[in-house]
Amino acid sequence: MSDFAASAPVRLAERLNNVETSAIRELFKLLGKPGIISFAGGFPDAALFDVEGIREAALAALASNPGAALQYGATEGFDPLREQLSAFMASKGAVDVAPTDLIVTTGSQQALDLLGKTLISPGDKVIVEGPTFLATIQCFKLYGAELITVPVDGQGADVEVLQRLIEQHRPKFVYLIPTFGNPSGATMSLQRRRRVLELAVQTATLVVEDDPYGDLYFDAPPPPSLLALSAQVPGSRARLVHCGSLSKVLSPGLRVGWLVAPPALLAKATMCKQFSDAHTSTFAQATAAHYLAAGRMPATLARVRGIYARRADAMVQALQAELGEAVAFEPPRGGLFVWVRLTGAGGTCTDGAELAQRAIEQGVAFVPGAPFFARDPDRATLRLSFATVDEARIREGVRRLAAALRICSI
Amino acid sequence: MSDFAASAPVRLAERLNNVETSAIRELFKLLGKPGIISFAGGFPDAALFDVEGIREAALAALASNPGAALQYGATEGFDPLREQLSAFMASKGAVDVAPTDLIVTTGSQQALDLLGKTLISPGDKVIVEGPTFLATIQCFKLYGAELITVPVDGQGADVEVLQRLIEQHRPKFVYLIPTFGNPSGATMSLQRRRRVLELAVQTATLVVEDDPYGDLYFDAPPPPSLLALSAQVPGSRARLVHCGSLSKVLSPGLRVGWLVAPPALLAKATMCKQFSDAHTSTFAQATAAHYLAAGRMPATLARVRGIYARRADAMVQALQAELGEAVAFEPPRGGLFVWVRLTGAGGTCTDGAELAQRAIEQGVAFVPGAPFFARDPDRATLRLSFATVDEARIREGVRRLAAALRICSI
Repeated sequence: MSDFAASAPVRLAERLNNVETSAIRELFKLLGKPGIISFAGGFPDAALFDVEGIREAALAALASNPGAALQYGATEGFDPLREQLSAFMASKGAVDVAPTDLIVTTGSQQALDLLGKTLISPGDKVIVEGPTFLATIQCFKLYGAELITVPVDGQGADVEVLQRLIEQHRPKFVYLIPTFGNPSGATMSLQRRRRVLELAVQTATLVVEDDPYGDLYFDAPPPPSLLALSAQVPGSRARLVHCGSLSKVLSPGLRVGWLVAPPALLAKATMCKQFSDAHTSTFAQATAAHYLAAGRMPATLARVRGIYARRADAMVQALQAELGEAVAFEPPRGGLFVWVRLTGAGGTCTDGAELAQRAIEQGVAFVPGAPFFARDPDRATLRLSFATVDEARIREGVRRLAAALRICSI
Repeated sequence: MSDFAASAPVRLAERLNNVETSAIRELFKLLGKPGIISFAGGFPDAALFDVEGIREAALAALASNPGAALQYGATEGFDPLREQLSAFMASKGAVDVAPTDLIVTTGSQQALDLLGKTLISPGDKVIVEGPTFLATIQCFKLYGAELITVPVDGQGADVEVLQRLIEQHRPKFVYLIPTFGNPSGATMSLQRRRRVLELAVQTATLVVEDDPYGDLYFDAPPPPSLLALSAQVPGSRARLVHCGSLSKVLSPGLRVGWLVAPPALLAKATMCKQFSDAHTSTFAQATAAHYLAAGRMPATLARVRGIYARRADAMVQALQAELGEAVAFEPPRGGLFVWVRLTGAGGTCTDGAELAQRAIEQGVAFVPGAPFFARDPDRATLRLSFATVDEARIREGVRRLAAALRICSI
């Protein structure tokens, strides 16, 4: 035994070499500073949660069948919730998703993890939007994926580039947030959505649609989800995966998401889930099922849409008034974010990370855009969330941002 | 694009080649047969859940701080719960585990998954008990582990063999269920526990203690957990991981487990959890925290211990009376299981899988023991759970088992 070093450190798995602790985490440590106005979050406003509705749903779950709500459950999910989620998707245009076509996941983060576990071998290529959700990048990298990025404009991912990348790289799958994307806020046009589904069929490529924000539109509903649209593109459902979530519309703390996938893939993802966490909290699932069954969701959505729309508008107006030509952005039509590009007009700063430091000093926080790019970061970008700040504070926060930009000028 | 096959199946990750769908799943499909008495489960009796206590805890969580209970939370866990779990462990002898020394996991299944993700590279060796928990075997195999088995007797894992295996294989870690093991029911002696901790230090080997059943003792408490005992073995805490769970003592449906590990490993496991499910349901965590804070756990444990003890005794008596020398087993001192070996006395069957088929025909179900061995299965073994069946039905079920064994005789 003498050749064992008593002080040897724990040997970690090689896959950990593929990820690093996020730079954003360091930034978040600064948010505790008193008086900071934060546009840094990526979460809904807790003050808007329908606490009374959730309380009633939890009580109903414990009253009607406490054994089922508190016992182990099927890995696939609690059947009454699967039925409610099928109906919820039908209400949004995806009318042919049976309860057995989906499994419940522990938030949609777990849906991403299960896709990684089920599909990605080290060295496999995956195409993601540039920029895309940071935790998606890290999640897929942990499974050894090599990420390829397709650029995004105001109409979503560029499908002509996407086609070339698919032909060049033959990816394991393509991951998109087509509606009110995080962080871009962009929404893919109907025409491009149709083209993505056609590409999936023509190239036999799996496409993953992550759709946590689609319900949070401000004026008109967005184009139909890829899931809803797949009914019109023959063969596309067999190439489509859809991730849904109640986190942005009901409560993140329930950790209820879901995964729709072709049967063979869904069965393998279910097996992976069995060894990941056995199943999602049946108590949370039963609560969500009772909430949806009680019919409260439409009113809840109508209320949060209105509030987020006013906050988004306040931020857009303030950015235009206070920062003018120093910033460029598309006003969002839904979701939680404004994605801003520093233009450098008038000699102002074009480095999002540097501006973030100056902004903290001025009492306002946001997340610089560079970490959201899996490769070739655009360092002039910023992600601003308006979701958790009231309109007066949004205006004050943007004034502070303008002050930071003046300091940051070159 | 012509070289893409439109009908090409989805290409799965290579890691899926390491696992197969469990034979037990096929058996479970037969349990729906009317009138079956099932000793097949591995779960607590839902009729014993403290539903009133959980309802009060859930209401308190929503009343005291609904925003915190329903919003995103820290990946490490909900701080009030981490404090309660620290106190819960202290009440069982592990007095020096700070709240920051643990993270909350989505059931202890997720703790196993995080250990696999954080530690196991394909080809790494891991030592497990033969037999051990089936979902552990599959979970570690998905990460590419090569499993080595250490034999178990009535005093738990054989530590002399364990020492030789560690020296020979230099495993990434050793995984043990030292108390009322699943499926063996065995409890490791105090002497062997001390020796395991000394081995961990001497060979610089990480030891994982999975302890979901330790609270479910029938008469006297079991020896201290490896976690509690590590205070007496200098250097051993730095080589020890401990997985706890509320599933067997409060409710599996909450999916609340926890992981204690040395700081560097805990930090990496936390990062892996961030990309696995972001965090465990804050609603479930806040409910569990309020339950523990309300002080109801000691009475709940006293009640279920008494009921399980009587059921275990009924099963032991019935097995001795009805099957006599055809079976050998150690009467359990806690937990949920009796682990039985078919002796073949009087020319009776010695194949657990064959007996399981005959037993279903006679109206009783159990799980054959072979799948619980990562290698070299002992096919003469059976796992019988007494936890969810009342005493009269246990006696009837064992009579049916005896009838099945008579048919199964050679």
